[in-house]
Amino acid sequence: MRLNIPIPLRWGDLDAYGHINNVETLRLVEEARVRAFWHATGERTGDELPTAILELSAESEVWSLVARTEIEYLLPMPYSSAPIDVEVWLGRLGGASIEVCFALFSPLGVTPRLLYARAATTIVTVDAASSRPVRFPKHLTEAWAPYREDPIHFTRR
Amino acid sequence: MRLNIPIPLRWGDLDAYGHINNVETLRLVEEARVRAFWHATGERTGDELPTAILELSAESEVWSLVARTEIEYLLPMPYSSAPIDVEVWLGRLGGASIEVCFALFSPLGVTPRLLYARAATTIVTVDAASSRPVRFPKHLTEAWAPYREDPIHFTRR
Amino acid sequence: MRLNIPIPLRWGDLDAYGHINNVETLRLVEEARVRAFWHATGERTGDELPTAILELSAESEVWSLVARTEIEYLLPMPYSSAPIDVEVWLGRLGGASIEVCFALFSPLGVTPRLLYARAATTIVTVDAASSRPVRFPKHLTEAWAPYREDPIHFTRR
Amino acid sequence: MRLNIPIPLRWGDLDAYGHINNVETLRLVEEARVRAFWHATGERTGDELPTAILELSAESEVWSLVARTEIEYLLPMPYSSAPIDVEVWLGRLGGASIEVCFALFSPLGVTPRLLYARAATTIVTVDAASSRPVRFPKHLTEAWAPYREDPIHFTRR
Repeated sequence: MRLNIPIPLRWGDLDAYGHINNVETLRLVEEARVRAFWHATGERTGDELPTAILELSAESEVWSLVARTEIEYLLPMPYSSAPIDVEVWLGRLGGASIEVCFALFSPLGVTPRLLYARAATTIVTVDAASSRPVRFPKHLTEAWAPYREDPIHFTRR
Repeated sequence: MRLNIPIPLRWGDLDAYGHINNVETLRLVEEARVRAFWHATGERTGDELPTAILELSAESEVWSLVARTEIEYLLPMPYSSAPIDVEVWLGRLGGASIEVCFALFSPLGVTPRLLYARAATTIVTVDAASSRPVRFPKHLTEAWAPYREDPIHFTRR
Repeated sequence: MRLNIPIPLRWGDLDAYGHINNVETLRLVEEARVRAFWHATGERTGDELPTAILELSAESEVWSLVARTEIEYLLPMPYSSAPIDVEVWLGRLGGASIEVCFALFSPLGVTPRLLYARAATTIVTVDAASSRPVRFPKHLTEAWAPYREDPIHFTRR
Repeated sequence: MRLNIPIPLRWGDLDAYGHINNVETLRLVEEARVRAFWHATGERTGDELPTAILELSAESEVWSLVARTEIEYLLPMPYSSAPIDVEVWLGRLGGASIEVCFALFSPLGVTPRLLYARAATTIVTVDAASSRPVRFPKHLTEAWAPYREDPIHFTRR
């Protein structure tokens, strides 16, 4: 099962080629990840995704850090006022690391549906004070288990 | 009359102080301006704002350039998954320049409503080839006239 | 007296018009300000500017916040591998606020010398815990006094 | 043989964790790549790297696009006023694609020398009008051949 997360673009994401810049594309991936798994402290509104249970705060005792990212750019992405449609799932679910997978599609309703890019990011949780790895608590891995699918098979390595 | 434009935040807009960075706040202002007055070429969906009639394209014969910006930061802005509520109106409507005014409020439904920042941006239209000023066509100024209100009275000059 | 601070550009600062984006221009202003007045904790190398005596750290007890910014864009700024030449001085030096002025010039050695933009930013110092204004200590205002010049006379208001 | 390219940081590259943000780290990689292989049109000053022979312009008939990026984050990167030291070399040199490799080290003179991140980016050249692949001309591959070394062996896949 995958999450579908609408991620709005900004005109400022364009670069001099008139496409969404490849680095900014990873900003979109970051935002999809944040919305998939984190909730802002003190801000739970009931609208969060069921997976949004990590605490998003620099004051949190456990920090979630990005250990690696891989991305393939398949089609140039134009600016549009409609948000792109980002599919998010878990490729690997380890004790202290998860691999989050992303497929960035054209906005809902645009035909044909275009796959602009696909990416995978490995997240590790560490103790904020000691920087040592921390295992994900069981209630997290249980909440995320339904979103476990095959990892991306990157073809351009 | 003012436009109310929802502008989503990104976690990456935060800086090391844990607030939406003051420069990124102007990125939000830019995006509100783009959504208020421009439409992407070939992308008209019928959902655009009635004011979104400038053509947003580097290939356009007329370019809209920012001549000045002024902004007052009134309250630190936190990240939230809900978009902030940006009020947009025209403070001055000249022949070849307009002053666009912005008030950046907390997301709809948050109480009390907070005014994070207010800003004004002067836009001039120039010929893309010659860089010389171009007058706004009459159908633009007519479409925008209902959104003419008093300019911002900046208090910290 | 003014500081001259070289600020490198990035290709990614360009927008779809092929100019350094007007919001990114304020990122350049921010970086000039940081280099003019702050030093990173534990990083003093002896090369800092004599004015770089504010502590740059979110853990610092006193935070320096931007209260307002005003900028006039005079010429489109292209990307260049050479850093632009930013002149920095103090327009006003109050008890708990300073106005920092900026003139963004073309890279040293480029003729004719071009003034791309000029900007002013008001900085206030607040107690990190209470958010209440804090007076600049006397050794700061003394170190900064030589860089006091006339504020910018903005012509496009 | 590797190029050593100093890439300045910006305070605004920090995120709410107080580290250089992982997405901004790819902005640093982009800038190192631009400085290694491109020159701005009409701007040749004689100081360019011997490898900087691609034309950097949206008006160019051949565009260089990023097809994929992979990055491993090894250590948190702090802000510093000194530029980081980025080693750049070619991991693979194909007919119409190159793999550019990057190792992002602490600023020169900082001891011990720290490896913050390593990355590889695949660049393809395409015809700007047709988007079809274009072979790198022979004078490019000859100029770049000395900088051919082993690709990065990523360990966290």
